[in-house]
Amino acid sequence: MAFDVPSGYRAFKETEVAAYPAAVPAVAARLGGKPADWTVREVGDGNLNLVFIIEGPAGGVVLKQALPYVRLVGESWPLTLRRAFFEHEALLTQRKVAPAHVPEIFHFDETLALTVMAYLKPHIILRKGLIRGTVYPKLADDMASFMAETLFATSDLGQPAATKKKHMALFCDNIELCRITEDLVFTDPWREATLNRWTSPQLDAVAAAARADGAWKRAAQEYKLKFLSEAQALIHGDLHSGSIMVTEAETFAIDPEFAFYGPIGFDVGALLGNLWLAYFAQSGHEPRPGARDEYRDWILSTAESVWLLFDQRFRGLWNTRHAGDALTPALFPDRTTLRKVQDTYMHHLFADSLGFAGCKMTRRILGLAHVEDLESIGDPDLRAACEKRALRLARSLMVDGQGYTDIKAVSEAARALQREGVT
Amino acid sequence: MAFDVPSGYRAFKETEVAAYPAAVPAVAARLGGKPADWTVREVGDGNLNLVFIIEGPAGGVVLKQALPYVRLVGESWPLTLRRAFFEHEALLTQRKVAPAHVPEIFHFDETLALTVMAYLKPHIILRKGLIRGTVYPKLADDMASFMAETLFATSDLGQPAATKKKHMALFCDNIELCRITEDLVFTDPWREATLNRWTSPQLDAVAAAARADGAWKRAAQEYKLKFLSEAQALIHGDLHSGSIMVTEAETFAIDPEFAFYGPIGFDVGALLGNLWLAYFAQSGHEPRPGARDEYRDWILSTAESVWLLFDQRFRGLWNTRHAGDALTPALFPDRTTLRKVQDTYMHHLFADSLGFAGCKMTRRILGLAHVEDLESIGDPDLRAACEKRALRLARSLMVDGQGYTDIKAVSEAARALQREGVT
Repeated sequence: MAFDVPSGYRAFKETEVAAYPAAVPAVAARLGGKPADWTVREVGDGNLNLVFIIEGPAGGVVLKQALPYVRLVGESWPLTLRRAFFEHEALLTQRKVAPAHVPEIFHFDETLALTVMAYLKPHIILRKGLIRGTVYPKLADDMASFMAETLFATSDLGQPAATKKKHMALFCDNIELCRITEDLVFTDPWREATLNRWTSPQLDAVAAAARADGAWKRAAQEYKLKFLSEAQALIHGDLHSGSIMVTEAETFAIDPEFAFYGPIGFDVGALLGNLWLAYFAQSGHEPRPGARDEYRDWILSTAESVWLLFDQRFRGLWNTRHAGDALTPALFPDRTTLRKVQDTYMHHLFADSLGFAGCKMTRRILGLAHVEDLESIGDPDLRAACEKRALRLARSLMVDGQGYTDIKAVSEAARALQREGVT
Repeated sequence: MAFDVPSGYRAFKETEVAAYPAAVPAVAARLGGKPADWTVREVGDGNLNLVFIIEGPAGGVVLKQALPYVRLVGESWPLTLRRAFFEHEALLTQRKVAPAHVPEIFHFDETLALTVMAYLKPHIILRKGLIRGTVYPKLADDMASFMAETLFATSDLGQPAATKKKHMALFCDNIELCRITEDLVFTDPWREATLNRWTSPQLDAVAAAARADGAWKRAAQEYKLKFLSEAQALIHGDLHSGSIMVTEAETFAIDPEFAFYGPIGFDVGALLGNLWLAYFAQSGHEPRPGARDEYRDWILSTAESVWLLFDQRFRGLWNTRHAGDALTPALFPDRTTLRKVQDTYMHHLFADSLGFAGCKMTRRILGLAHVEDLESIGDPDLRAACEKRALRLARSLMVDGQGYTDIKAVSEAARALQREGVT
């Protein structure tokens, strides 16, 4: 298949990669030694790209290269290489305000659609840690900071309208990646779509019911409209637990190729929704029922802390670093009124975050791209039971979101579903 | 003062204008005859531009040229000429879907920042007609159509996300004009700003109270946030009764230089708010109290019809010409659910429209740019009485908007204020 790629683009083979950094001083310096000393391995397990780790005597880098098609599906689904440009641009923006949680960038090559960045070692993908049952004491704090810093800074609170509009114009062109989300997250799970799949036959009736569930479909489409039209901040756009690298001491958000000016709650909801998926998946990973009860509690309290700390940090930035054209604190010398303004704003973000979390959870069970938390559960009956509970919560967050007055109420709902053993 | 203008730009003097169309065949043809036969007069009474009417034996045209500063304020306030580009682009977009209500464009000259368009004759500015007490039987119907057609077509219901995002990227650059609205409509009336003015001393206490009114300021800032971040459709951006040309048989919307992808309710609210200003101004234009009662009723029923017909047309387009990525009717074969989706959408638009109407009304009384409806009332006590009633409604629409369950409720509130003779 012929793809529309820039002249000079070629997808690297593993054997070709080591030669590349030799011509890029910043990268060669990071690796140290000579090209002959460098080792390369392909580790991409995502849905879209090639990812190579190059290690040299002095250190390692990650070379991430976009392929002109969706890796998960194959060459039949072409996808613009320009996403590498948006990812690089988003990484720069995020690193400026949240340097502790965004990898350092050494090099970007637009023709080859590749970015060379810090190799995070011994960090692992958060999702894998959640499957193993590893506690990450800094996770909530770090991710709350990452989200508050990046989303505040690029919102109408954190930057002037003129700056925001110029940046937004750039990201308006990230059309194809947004399109994937529009279809796969908000639409396909609620209609007959060739690429949908689910645990069958266990979930056949559930999937059919979703397609016939007017209220649920309506909610999904209303969140889709928000995704299409609410340009609140430069969002990461794909902030699930597979886009987060962790150790017990550090947390990094990676892979923002879906970035664009969209609703803030989409990022917060992506993280919360994936934590709740991990919660329901625990039954498939514990050696005996109840063995992971403590870990389950940790997941729920982490989700709570993510929201509560995000809320606190975001308000803190608002009070101390407001630099935008909206909701200016100086207009409200009366602190009670400012507090009301902030309460209203955060209340909307909270409701949005729950709804988007529900969309993201649903699509991972009824749509094309699933998550390892659930996929790795070998027994399909057990997996389906976990998935049904997750779908129950997802639907409730989307359809009855206003019933959740605070984040603890979501934990309680999750616990109730787990306790009832809904199947 | 030196302005940042393209090389080749010069602001036309009236005596120079007639020479221009000779070199533009499409315009010369429209005028007919020879340059010596053409008459020119400057008629610009707006706040920003030069407007010349050129008439020839075969017909007339309007030549509208942007000045590199705000005409209302003077050369001390520079303003980009690029607004002419956005106006032309918006006119083309609007005329494609609402040709009966947008003037034909004959020529656009980017260097000179000028557009040549049809001379509408004997149409007058709606605002002047409203001051005279003229009934326009087609007004509500035509403006409902203009708004429904233009706003639907450019929303996520009327065009695919990819098309919308490309168009939006273009209009993201209309920064300076948006900035004027952000400051003058949403912020200045509620703070001490040098350019604010009001009927003084009659309204001194009212203006001071507005600046101290936490709930009102909060509402103004929340609508400003919507203006900054809700990219619902390509809005006209300045759809007051001075941007509408009418006869009893025809209605045209002109001057969309403030166009950008913003909240739909901002356009609907601009029109409604200016009708309600006209309503309260009638007391200053009637020969004896009550002489314009019937006309007052016509204004209120026109405002009602604007909303009701807009609502009806917008839903009609949704049912028959959906071409976007949001809220697709095909996903809702169950018509009850589709109806709920549409009710929710239109309910939000209605609430937004009332709130934005309130912002627009307020700024015309407490901010920089006033309206002739009120300014032409010679007796300052009488003018102030009209203005106070208008401000009472404006505040109520902004702060207690959810109390208005339908458009008739707004008419009732306006009548009550008029009847009580609030001063």
